[in-house]
Amino acid sequence: MSHNRFGKIFSVTTFGESHGPAIGCVIDGVPPGIAIAEDDFAHDLERRATGRSRHTSQRREEDRVEILSGVYQGRTTGTALALLIRNTDARSKDYANITQQFRPGHADYTYWQKYGIRDPRGGGRSSARETTMRVAAAVIAKKWLRERFGIEVRGHMAQIGEIVPRAFDWNAVEGNPFFWPDAAMVPELEAFMDALRKSGDSVGARVTAVAMNVPPGWGEPIYGKLDGDLAAAMMSINAVKGVEIGDGFACVAQRGTEHRDLIAPDGFRSNHAGGILGGISTGQDIVVSVAIKPTSSLRLPGDSVDVNGDVVEVVTTGRHDPCVGIRATPIVEAMLALTLIDHALRHRAQCGDVGDITPRIPATTTKTTTS
Amino acid sequence: MSHNRFGKIFSVTTFGESHGPAIGCVIDGVPPGIAIAEDDFAHDLERRATGRSRHTSQRREEDRVEILSGVYQGRTTGTALALLIRNTDARSKDYANITQQFRPGHADYTYWQKYGIRDPRGGGRSSARETTMRVAAAVIAKKWLRERFGIEVRGHMAQIGEIVPRAFDWNAVEGNPFFWPDAAMVPELEAFMDALRKSGDSVGARVTAVAMNVPPGWGEPIYGKLDGDLAAAMMSINAVKGVEIGDGFACVAQRGTEHRDLIAPDGFRSNHAGGILGGISTGQDIVVSVAIKPTSSLRLPGDSVDVNGDVVEVVTTGRHDPCVGIRATPIVEAMLALTLIDHALRHRAQCGDVGDITPRIPATTTKTTTS
Amino acid sequence: MSHNRFGKIFSVTTFGESHGPAIGCVIDGVPPGIAIAEDDFAHDLERRATGRSRHTSQRREEDRVEILSGVYQGRTTGTALALLIRNTDARSKDYANITQQFRPGHADYTYWQKYGIRDPRGGGRSSARETTMRVAAAVIAKKWLRERFGIEVRGHMAQIGEIVPRAFDWNAVEGNPFFWPDAAMVPELEAFMDALRKSGDSVGARVTAVAMNVPPGWGEPIYGKLDGDLAAAMMSINAVKGVEIGDGFACVAQRGTEHRDLIAPDGFRSNHAGGILGGISTGQDIVVSVAIKPTSSLRLPGDSVDVNGDVVEVVTTGRHDPCVGIRATPIVEAMLALTLIDHALRHRAQCGDVGDITPRIPATTTKTTTS
Amino acid sequence: MSHNRFGKIFSVTTFGESHGPAIGCVIDGVPPGIAIAEDDFAHDLERRATGRSRHTSQRREEDRVEILSGVYQGRTTGTALALLIRNTDARSKDYANITQQFRPGHADYTYWQKYGIRDPRGGGRSSARETTMRVAAAVIAKKWLRERFGIEVRGHMAQIGEIVPRAFDWNAVEGNPFFWPDAAMVPELEAFMDALRKSGDSVGARVTAVAMNVPPGWGEPIYGKLDGDLAAAMMSINAVKGVEIGDGFACVAQRGTEHRDLIAPDGFRSNHAGGILGGISTGQDIVVSVAIKPTSSLRLPGDSVDVNGDVVEVVTTGRHDPCVGIRATPIVEAMLALTLIDHALRHRAQCGDVGDITPRIPATTTKTTTS
Repeated sequence: MSHNRFGKIFSVTTFGESHGPAIGCVIDGVPPGIAIAEDDFAHDLERRATGRSRHTSQRREEDRVEILSGVYQGRTTGTALALLIRNTDARSKDYANITQQFRPGHADYTYWQKYGIRDPRGGGRSSARETTMRVAAAVIAKKWLRERFGIEVRGHMAQIGEIVPRAFDWNAVEGNPFFWPDAAMVPELEAFMDALRKSGDSVGARVTAVAMNVPPGWGEPIYGKLDGDLAAAMMSINAVKGVEIGDGFACVAQRGTEHRDLIAPDGFRSNHAGGILGGISTGQDIVVSVAIKPTSSLRLPGDSVDVNGDVVEVVTTGRHDPCVGIRATPIVEAMLALTLIDHALRHRAQCGDVGDITPRIPATTTKTTTS
Repeated sequence: MSHNRFGKIFSVTTFGESHGPAIGCVIDGVPPGIAIAEDDFAHDLERRATGRSRHTSQRREEDRVEILSGVYQGRTTGTALALLIRNTDARSKDYANITQQFRPGHADYTYWQKYGIRDPRGGGRSSARETTMRVAAAVIAKKWLRERFGIEVRGHMAQIGEIVPRAFDWNAVEGNPFFWPDAAMVPELEAFMDALRKSGDSVGARVTAVAMNVPPGWGEPIYGKLDGDLAAAMMSINAVKGVEIGDGFACVAQRGTEHRDLIAPDGFRSNHAGGILGGISTGQDIVVSVAIKPTSSLRLPGDSVDVNGDVVEVVTTGRHDPCVGIRATPIVEAMLALTLIDHALRHRAQCGDVGDITPRIPATTTKTTTS
Repeated sequence: MSHNRFGKIFSVTTFGESHGPAIGCVIDGVPPGIAIAEDDFAHDLERRATGRSRHTSQRREEDRVEILSGVYQGRTTGTALALLIRNTDARSKDYANITQQFRPGHADYTYWQKYGIRDPRGGGRSSARETTMRVAAAVIAKKWLRERFGIEVRGHMAQIGEIVPRAFDWNAVEGNPFFWPDAAMVPELEAFMDALRKSGDSVGARVTAVAMNVPPGWGEPIYGKLDGDLAAAMMSINAVKGVEIGDGFACVAQRGTEHRDLIAPDGFRSNHAGGILGGISTGQDIVVSVAIKPTSSLRLPGDSVDVNGDVVEVVTTGRHDPCVGIRATPIVEAMLALTLIDHALRHRAQCGDVGDITPRIPATTTKTTTS
Repeated sequence: MSHNRFGKIFSVTTFGESHGPAIGCVIDGVPPGIAIAEDDFAHDLERRATGRSRHTSQRREEDRVEILSGVYQGRTTGTALALLIRNTDARSKDYANITQQFRPGHADYTYWQKYGIRDPRGGGRSSARETTMRVAAAVIAKKWLRERFGIEVRGHMAQIGEIVPRAFDWNAVEGNPFFWPDAAMVPELEAFMDALRKSGDSVGARVTAVAMNVPPGWGEPIYGKLDGDLAAAMMSINAVKGVEIGDGFACVAQRGTEHRDLIAPDGFRSNHAGGILGGISTGQDIVVSVAIKPTSSLRLPGDSVDVNGDVVEVVTTGRHDPCVGIRATPIVEAMLALTLIDHALRHRAQCGDVGDITPRIPATTTKTTTS
């Protein structure tokens, strides 16, 4: 991966800043013949959009996708597929006072040191707005994965602050603004978030995404590992500070006899591995979780310096999420889908001559979604 | 990253299997003029080598590096630098009985599904032996980073099973076979490991690596982020199931006011960010940790199937580590060094015209090594 | 290079079809701090534009560039720089009758075989309209090369059909629609082209581009050679069937004593090498020429088949150039500039520690532009 | 392409210098299951080897290939495939006197300027010895292309100095040391070469390679064009100064009605395009030719300077070819095969879902080999 481009065969190049005229992406290596229309993007962009509830930042955007190329008569042509979304609701004045300051916990200082120039409006290129295009690109990926392989990619919130779900039901996830899998806890979360917003502080989150029905064999040892690319994909999302596969950091305290997923003719007995062994998919659910830090964009003052090196107190006004992790679920799903389609194409590139290999070990029926 | 090649400018292509004639690597983009000789590799390979203590697998290897190209009169020429190590101590017979079986928790099944063919000897390409070449390549990287920027890359064990250090002293790390930073606890660890070996089981580990004196500005938003490439680099190491930067998964439960690293003219006040913000280095210590799963190569039987799909009981004989994490520290350091040198070169490629940018915020004096 | 992206560090991803809503590009790795405004693109796009004389196709386009990202307060930020040009003058009806046919000498058949679907309007992605974005991207490259190194990139027509210049004057090149370096021959060329247009046929051309003041040392053996990347860059231009460096195919009949450029303390004695030896720039003028085939878009009927495999007679109406090479000069210059800036950044990535090396051999004063 | 690595999926990284201990390569993305043994390389390496006739340099090498990884029980495993050849016949003393000099027409000066250091022995990395590994890697590529698609890759000499074949017979090519397709002319060529050797001078050559039975659809617009990658591949060969596809530079003087390959239900009527349109294969023979400059390694003195900038007269002793083009045919074939297999894999990556597309236009029966 590098700069603004993700993926080796199915690759996505994004561009655009939070307060520039538009954001967009160019997707390369799209399999031809996929049915795509501008309406297809609405659902997933809606899930990601701000303003959907009082718990997310009050910036209202109309994410209308325009297809600039790569689709003819409703089907992908295989040529470069470009999507564009014009920015309509950016209030530059909300950022006026931070032009000269380095907000602690933000990338202001690092962009400044790297480029000697920065666009301070809305966090410029470091803003989360860029992730909108990933979700858009992933609409195409998800469609192809589903139609071609029956793969489903789903995500949910696994932890907010110190709160974890006490029950798990996939059906609950889409029914609340938190993507929380335990419907009974929603009022509790709402109260928690209201208190947090009043306090002016923020909290971190943990999001988990699962891909089901992924065939075994995707991923390339040693440096093209599926989990390696997943880790890079997830770490590229704003505010992510950790990535784990399957049991992840819980493995540290496990014994080998406990961790290894035993195999029987009717299937794996467990899925501690999270669907990947040796960097290659096993055919089990692929389970990936990310740690999202609490936002540093707070109205509570923080000490910093300005471009002259003088002491300042930074207060971030404008519209911010007390928990940016709330909107992360569609983005984590998107990166999982984008990584998977790239690996699907890479696998058939090298191994297209390999037929169906037996034995094929079914996935475990034991619930594999970790919280 | 892909297949067998890591890095964009300073890139390393490795080859070789555990029981093949040799392992090696080809390094591209090496800055010319670095003084290198075959003796330079001995120290770091020694640190990684097996057989150094009774706690690591009893395979004795003489890791003698041969420089095949890219060095003339003791200095790198800038052309492809190839290193070779002949395998001398591989006992194929130890693996004879698993040719037809899929060891649970290993990549046997996934390689079989992907390629329709596999080299079962010693885990073939999925063996940890390949990591030897990464440590060798990193010798060159570490040298250049140190001479050019004064960068030091150091690692230590941060957790074995549920045991964590109760004190921290960098000087203790090189004095025990565990890379443990608390000398007083070494007898305790030895007893723990002896008991574990007797039991036939294994345990996981957590390893942390730190890079000091890294200038601010390394890394490229959005998909060329320094932490993104670090995550991929670490996940490419055998047995790694999680990667975190700075406070990592501890961020989930933190508040924003607690997490953000405040800034004063004389320096950052803390380093929860682990030295990276917005994917770019801040000038603070870069702190990365990995979760290593407990090995599944156990003499304790595990249920599985063979290539015909019939039930078998797998027992792994041969020489194995009850905690593969013990040898991981030099490898985690190596991947940190390889990622850093690649980013150093990438940064000066694009931003070579950017002079020294002020203000330059010093790193915190608060101890940043996390355990 | 692959798909829609050119360049390793300074890389350009283009998108858009001839009759789609827009064409555009995203440029990665742009050095920060370059002064750029939307007006900067007008001159070079004008040079490339159709409709400028009766000798080029009568499609009138208003190539107005919109900068979507990557520029703040008039300077490049180093983040992804996106340019967009809306298509305003595409007459789809001109192409209606070829939807079902494969025009001989065009990519209709090959796109059909590759993708199983094609956009027949105006040649879709295979249209030369895409090259507009390369010229736009090259405006930025040329600016930086000039300001940073004093590099000038200039091109001219070297042959139309069997006609070659009888004299050479750079100053004549911009003064006629053919980019011809011999002003006295212009009436002759105009008469030739008028006769050609009347006949309905077309002719090929040879275009030469020269880069002056390129420092020695750019290019990477073995597969990152400057001439290797130039060859790929030029071959990616529509209708190009050959690329040569320096004396090119004339080398075949030369003797070694004649070809080798002798060296004296005051400079090279000649430049048969065209500025590149061993894939690396010598400091002499870089001279590259391309062969452009005669267009197959003719109103003279040509035999072919349709999508059912039935015999058809193809007549191409609409607006076409009897010599597409006439508009190629700015495009050939653009690819030379884009390749050079990428190599400038790649060279300093790896060799940024190498100071000024002596001796430095001056370029020859003998005229090196070949016709 | 970059540095020492060629190809996107099936990629080859080479290493090694002419007078170093060994040369080698690592091949990535090899389809698993191909039968390969060390003996398979002998034939093609023999064709390339020096010393095979008095017309090529008298350096006798025993090119014994050792397979270091990536093959198990005689079949490729899909993992990194490494090949090694030890250098056995390098006479360093032949090069002693040029350590301080820059040989005109060679890369001595450019490597010096780029790296500030160079290995002068035998041309170091710029030596043609590196091409041996390409021929070795191509053995695997040719095998797979033939077995999977029935593709044949063949090359021949098309011109030496001003001499061209007066007749053409593929069967003659392998029967003389020049790869000349006109057996009757061989004594004439031998006399020419003897005279040339006596004179101490050298001459250039033109080599053509043809690939037959390539399916239509390989290649990716815009920057992943098959001819673009071929151009880069050929230009990467030592001493190449020009590349052309099909009629190449002869297109310049052609008319459109003459150049375009008409189509009928029973096939194309001609192949001026050389098998590629719009960067994608047409299903016709792919025809590529290269211009090879006359070697500058002559015993006839040439003026130059030394590392201090002082005037010297350079005389190259040692063993050299008066026409390096004579040994180029297997190398040009190799690069064609390596480019084709990479494109085969890339095509099925993106377009693996596209079935057989009709109509399928047969190749012309008109002889397409150009001289």
